[in-house]
Amino acid sequence: MMSNIHGIIGYTITPFGANGEGLDLPALGQSIDRLIDSGVHAIAPLGSTGEGAYLSDAEWDQVAEFSIKHVAKRVPTIVSVSDLTTAKAIRRARFAEAHGADVVMVLPASYWKLSDAEILAHYRAIGDSIGVPIMLYNNPATSGTDMSVELILRIVNGVENVTMVKESTGDIQRMHKLQLLGESQVPFYNGCNPLALEAFAAGAKGWCTAAPNLIPQLNLDLYAASLAGDLDRARELFYRQLPLLDFILKGGLPATIKAGLCQTGLEVGDPRLPVFPLSEAGQGQLQAILKTLR
Amino acid sequence: MMSNIHGIIGYTITPFGANGEGLDLPALGQSIDRLIDSGVHAIAPLGSTGEGAYLSDAEWDQVAEFSIKHVAKRVPTIVSVSDLTTAKAIRRARFAEAHGADVVMVLPASYWKLSDAEILAHYRAIGDSIGVPIMLYNNPATSGTDMSVELILRIVNGVENVTMVKESTGDIQRMHKLQLLGESQVPFYNGCNPLALEAFAAGAKGWCTAAPNLIPQLNLDLYAASLAGDLDRARELFYRQLPLLDFILKGGLPATIKAGLCQTGLEVGDPRLPVFPLSEAGQGQLQAILKTLR
Amino acid sequence: MMSNIHGIIGYTITPFGANGEGLDLPALGQSIDRLIDSGVHAIAPLGSTGEGAYLSDAEWDQVAEFSIKHVAKRVPTIVSVSDLTTAKAIRRARFAEAHGADVVMVLPASYWKLSDAEILAHYRAIGDSIGVPIMLYNNPATSGTDMSVELILRIVNGVENVTMVKESTGDIQRMHKLQLLGESQVPFYNGCNPLALEAFAAGAKGWCTAAPNLIPQLNLDLYAASLAGDLDRARELFYRQLPLLDFILKGGLPATIKAGLCQTGLEVGDPRLPVFPLSEAGQGQLQAILKTLR
Amino acid sequence: MMSNIHGIIGYTITPFGANGEGLDLPALGQSIDRLIDSGVHAIAPLGSTGEGAYLSDAEWDQVAEFSIKHVAKRVPTIVSVSDLTTAKAIRRARFAEAHGADVVMVLPASYWKLSDAEILAHYRAIGDSIGVPIMLYNNPATSGTDMSVELILRIVNGVENVTMVKESTGDIQRMHKLQLLGESQVPFYNGCNPLALEAFAAGAKGWCTAAPNLIPQLNLDLYAASLAGDLDRARELFYRQLPLLDFILKGGLPATIKAGLCQTGLEVGDPRLPVFPLSEAGQGQLQAILKTLR
Repeated sequence: MMSNIHGIIGYTITPFGANGEGLDLPALGQSIDRLIDSGVHAIAPLGSTGEGAYLSDAEWDQVAEFSIKHVAKRVPTIVSVSDLTTAKAIRRARFAEAHGADVVMVLPASYWKLSDAEILAHYRAIGDSIGVPIMLYNNPATSGTDMSVELILRIVNGVENVTMVKESTGDIQRMHKLQLLGESQVPFYNGCNPLALEAFAAGAKGWCTAAPNLIPQLNLDLYAASLAGDLDRARELFYRQLPLLDFILKGGLPATIKAGLCQTGLEVGDPRLPVFPLSEAGQGQLQAILKTLR
Repeated sequence: MMSNIHGIIGYTITPFGANGEGLDLPALGQSIDRLIDSGVHAIAPLGSTGEGAYLSDAEWDQVAEFSIKHVAKRVPTIVSVSDLTTAKAIRRARFAEAHGADVVMVLPASYWKLSDAEILAHYRAIGDSIGVPIMLYNNPATSGTDMSVELILRIVNGVENVTMVKESTGDIQRMHKLQLLGESQVPFYNGCNPLALEAFAAGAKGWCTAAPNLIPQLNLDLYAASLAGDLDRARELFYRQLPLLDFILKGGLPATIKAGLCQTGLEVGDPRLPVFPLSEAGQGQLQAILKTLR
Repeated sequence: MMSNIHGIIGYTITPFGANGEGLDLPALGQSIDRLIDSGVHAIAPLGSTGEGAYLSDAEWDQVAEFSIKHVAKRVPTIVSVSDLTTAKAIRRARFAEAHGADVVMVLPASYWKLSDAEILAHYRAIGDSIGVPIMLYNNPATSGTDMSVELILRIVNGVENVTMVKESTGDIQRMHKLQLLGESQVPFYNGCNPLALEAFAAGAKGWCTAAPNLIPQLNLDLYAASLAGDLDRARELFYRQLPLLDFILKGGLPATIKAGLCQTGLEVGDPRLPVFPLSEAGQGQLQAILKTLR
Repeated sequence: MMSNIHGIIGYTITPFGANGEGLDLPALGQSIDRLIDSGVHAIAPLGSTGEGAYLSDAEWDQVAEFSIKHVAKRVPTIVSVSDLTTAKAIRRARFAEAHGADVVMVLPASYWKLSDAEILAHYRAIGDSIGVPIMLYNNPATSGTDMSVELILRIVNGVENVTMVKESTGDIQRMHKLQLLGESQVPFYNGCNPLALEAFAAGAKGWCTAAPNLIPQLNLDLYAASLAGDLDRARELFYRQLPLLDFILKGGLPATIKAGLCQTGLEVGDPRLPVFPLSEAGQGQLQAILKTLR
């Protein structure tokens, strides 16, 4: 049940063919190679950036299997297996484990608001079905469910293989509370890009981000400066990359990251409708921001 | 493109077998018959109450086809066809139309926040794909997207077959604004149970509700009193049924309505996990409320 | 301790001299006479509209004393005595009572967030200091404190002379809850102008409003239609006056009501800075709205 | 117009006599001496902690004059001069300047929501009336007004002596935006205690806090570690003092700081009602927290 997930955890996009149809697995492979070659510490397919929610079950399986195989243990693979029913989330978790995932990530996706007891039972059922560690993921903006720190710790304490927490509310006080109430024993990871500096300051063990698709070295350098305890350098590195971090958050990760990959020579198609590809104006802004960072 | 949807629009549950597996179509048929026999003015399958979001595509098709056939034009059928991608929502809308739906309902379901332009394009693409009217559905609590009245009217004016609006924010000012800005030409329907009295006072043409599964006569009487302009009677009827309306909203519609149907002799199974069935304490409260209303 | 406050409760402005300096009591007297002559059922000086919070203590005393004397029991007078400290609120309450106020209104004004126990003690201390009834006033938008219905009922049950509730959250469910939990024994009054129709539908006993300074007959007719249980006429009257109600809320009551009084021939000066008088564009809009209502 | 406000800016309480009546200026003098002797870099009387809003005008003048004289230029004095009308805020600002304040702090206190133009005019009118620098203060929780970063920069650019910004929303992104849009030229200060570590990480020039009344050395050490760029030491110091920072924020600054001063031998009375003094249970918790920090 040990894992040592840390540092820069790179999220992959899911490349589609024309009109958002079909999967372009060769392009996915290239984007994974880029991330690993740049030095990221882990790969996370099928997250928000990966449009996991917009795939059919068959497509989801293909992307999971391909990604894990392609990473080939060069770094750990963390597969997002969230689904609306407990049964379907379990199926995905088992599938990911069976194909070699090192960790699975679970967001309590919901249509009907879930009670704390329902959320705990959901994590327990998934945890009981697999042997790999689970990274609990809190992101009310996409899941509609905001887990309190108290609930998160109940889950961590109650489900053996929930051993890590990804926090994406953007509220640094959650991390403080996790640190204090969790008595520094629960590793937490930051999922809010423009909070990267402060999350590391507060003790985050890693940064879950799609930014390394575009600016891996800046992301890695920020982590290194934080790990070295060099606040002045960390601050300087953070403010340099902040315009890009703000841009990809505000513009939507699939649209902005796909546009950015395309600008750097890797054609990965558009997001699936109703999500629009990045507008021409947006592409111009992105190009301008990226130019200042090279 | 004409339709005359009005009055009490009854939402159906989706009965499952043991452990939430499989569909129980005979029970679905019985629940539909009950609603129609009680006098509701329309039937709406696969909405929030119907756990549409928790079904596989194959199950969704089965429930849609069966429901439409079983209603058999005794009253209009309004099928919720929302899905996360535009392509899948179009597929469902076409399927519903092909099988005889009178109206389709569309909520702009989202994982990534949608811009106004993305939402408009989503409705346009669906509208262009079918010939039946669309009821636009605004419910930020479940969809994560809150459409402004201005956007709603842009869609109504821009997409020919979007001709009705279901408003579920619970904010009566939205209905006022629809009435004023829409120059009394856009029929709106209330989707927030504890707002039933005021929505009719403000001019709502109908009430989209799962309550008629349990208390159809009280719902119908409230509509009749409102239509007759009898405020004192409407108020009295509303406050009588309000404890039940509050209860089913607070307890979650699938769990409470399914429990209530079971208490009145129709076994329809439990909601799908992670949604819990109604607790024993809740069942006791529900029985007590229902007892006072008979 | 009896009182029979009901119907249209007209809020007065506080006229100032040039540059917001000094009080113009003759103009205040004229505005009070207009309201009473138009038929309002009570007069409420020193509320939000009356810029009570922007007066010095000496000015506050002058306005309170003058208003009560000028009304001269033609209708009941309800004086807002809210202040930031309990001691100062008690002083104002006693002053108002000593000068003949029929009712005092108390908002739990706060700088530091107050606990439920602090709010209850505040009302108790004021209640114990006077003999006239208190109208409890909930308006989180101006006071920063939102009292739950449960707290409101604890105060009503625990402080003998708190006998009425003015609700200004704009959330109709608060009134429902007051009606159900209060077992129809706690009279409530609506303080949110664009909720006038629905508040009466839900059983509000009165409407606290500055609108009668400008459109008294429409306000009174809406109340009469509601009292008569005539929903269709109430709805028609409400939608006619709604543009004016929206306008004065959105534009700020002191600025819009003062501008409107000026347009109808009663010069009452400007609000005190930093609050701006109504802009020229706003004055044009207001004139246009008022024109359609005559 | 130069000023070099930085580091730990200590907020003073306002000691009252029995029952919250009268001022205890000797105790105020002692609390000021304690703060200066402990090494704070500036003294700020009449802020939120100082219950400035709860004082009569005469009391406010006394406290301002006494505080400035007692500090006697040992460190800079920053006097909060906020008031509800522009005229009264100007009077206070002039009074403070005339008695030797180095800086005045202005929160756009409001009863009626203020527009951006009204807020800008308020700051301009105050700025034009005095010669000392103004620290703009954003704290929607107490003022009811949330100034956007864009508005803050318009004020800073438009009013010559508004040269510093105190940010108390607790949202670190505001500081990022001030830094980026202000092109690193607008010094900002943190007013949210549990954000102290991250604000320094993000480049805050100082920390406005009442905590040095109780734990000055820890506050000063955190500032020193941040200034030295030593992230590991800053983090360690921050987490040590965080329970105290959380406690004083959650319990209300006047109640908790006054209780803490009393526990350390300086009797300063209770807050003014309706604000309660710290409960006995709270006093026990505070004592326990303080014990671990000595």
